[in-house]
Amino acid sequence: MAEAGPQQLPAAQSVHHELRNAENSAAFLLDHLSERRNDSLRILDAGAGSGTITVSFAKAFPNAQVTGVDIRSDILPRARAVAETAGVKNIEFQQADLFKLPFDDASFDVTFCHQVLTHVKAPEAALREMLRVTKDEGTCVVAVREGDYDTEAIWPNLSGLVKFHGLAASVMEGGGGTTTAGRQLVSWALNAGVNRSQITASFSSWSYHTPTDKQIWAQGLITHIKRGPMHERGIGAGWTADDLDDMATAWEDWAAREDSSLSMLHGEIIVKK
Amino acid sequence: MAEAGPQQLPAAQSVHHELRNAENSAAFLLDHLSERRNDSLRILDAGAGSGTITVSFAKAFPNAQVTGVDIRSDILPRARAVAETAGVKNIEFQQADLFKLPFDDASFDVTFCHQVLTHVKAPEAALREMLRVTKDEGTCVVAVREGDYDTEAIWPNLSGLVKFHGLAASVMEGGGGTTTAGRQLVSWALNAGVNRSQITASFSSWSYHTPTDKQIWAQGLITHIKRGPMHERGIGAGWTADDLDDMATAWEDWAAREDSSLSMLHGEIIVKK
Repeated sequence: MAEAGPQQLPAAQSVHHELRNAENSAAFLLDHLSERRNDSLRILDAGAGSGTITVSFAKAFPNAQVTGVDIRSDILPRARAVAETAGVKNIEFQQADLFKLPFDDASFDVTFCHQVLTHVKAPEAALREMLRVTKDEGTCVVAVREGDYDTEAIWPNLSGLVKFHGLAASVMEGGGGTTTAGRQLVSWALNAGVNRSQITASFSSWSYHTPTDKQIWAQGLITHIKRGPMHERGIGAGWTADDLDDMATAWEDWAAREDSSLSMLHGEIIVKK
Repeated sequence: MAEAGPQQLPAAQSVHHELRNAENSAAFLLDHLSERRNDSLRILDAGAGSGTITVSFAKAFPNAQVTGVDIRSDILPRARAVAETAGVKNIEFQQADLFKLPFDDASFDVTFCHQVLTHVKAPEAALREMLRVTKDEGTCVVAVREGDYDTEAIWPNLSGLVKFHGLAASVMEGGGGTTTAGRQLVSWALNAGVNRSQITASFSSWSYHTPTDKQIWAQGLITHIKRGPMHERGIGAGWTADDLDDMATAWEDWAAREDSSLSMLHGEIIVKK
């Protein structure tokens, strides 16, 4: 989910993030590439984290060569383990800075980025870099999907969840990110030098309704709130230990209720090169 | 769209509403009924308005008998004209109150309702009435889709659009409706006496990105703001004529920009009976 960055994830948060795959996180791109499933594409996943989306690209495009990069070298062994468990061979992971990708111009047919730009100070510079490494052959694309945290719809809106939303928003904004990334993607792409006619834009939703999904999501956040970096940032930004306890308790209550749900809009763009 | 109620629509607003069909407004229900396209279902569209969704149900289920009802008798000739233009015969429209539907218990296989409950004071009573007229045969369903206006994501967020959002929210709430209907559907269904195991919940988005769609949406609202009931309600609620001009101008500017978009989450439930 958009509000949890890829940095320093505690275990429970990683469990949640590893639920992500190309089918639930990049359906718009799979649709766009539906005629190219057997092509020998070069695909880049920029900000791959633990690699579950990257690996599902490698499965969905068996003749492709897929590269996943992440700024964190310590996540790479986990990504490689995910690939090995899935039995995919057409994949590699390496450490790389999104703003200085270690690839020649026009190296990839498809460059993908998911829930990353919402956390960075210069999303347009990142887009320019992704455009640079993407081939200029008409059929090649840069595809991005980002959450829009301001649209988070939680029911019931328990007071501890309202507090948590405020904390998570301040963490995102404090790190230079934005809570309205999803709706800004077209604007960012235009500022990165793309023409509007190259862009196909869409929105989709990410939601939790089932008891299992709600528990996984809530437990990830509770770990984050109780002893993860969000705890330290919350205390540092003026929340009290009681506030943080309220947030954790509210997520527990929310996950246990049968009337509860969470959804958030995600913006999507496909930029044709 | 959710924020425009079905009452007293000026012409431009009607043009917008008539873009709605089963494919873009009830995809979740079409998916659920994909095996029953040729069955002789009885389908009710409760709050049919000008009938475009109702008519597309009649086309999608050629052996069904489709009934559309609306509280406004003056919209029925338009709905019948839409049906005649489409050449569908398996359809009828009649005036009816959602809270006192003129049908026996267990009359319909499928009862549908779209962008209606967000505007009413007693959504749970409406759901109970829809459940009453729906057959109790395991395969029969009540299906509802409602916008969640608090999740409206507009870019760029021009000051006149922020003002407009406030006006539209106050009109919805002033009429007894709510700006968080989408996320409350499961809760409402539980309160209407349904078990959680009967409910399948989902979210989808409604969005405008293309110049044509943005113009249709903006022109509908501009008419509404300049001389429709929203104008009167705005003035009555303390907005000035200048405020209303700002809103109309902002929608014009928004529609003309190439970086602009609008999206909103919609909640969806299918209740099996």
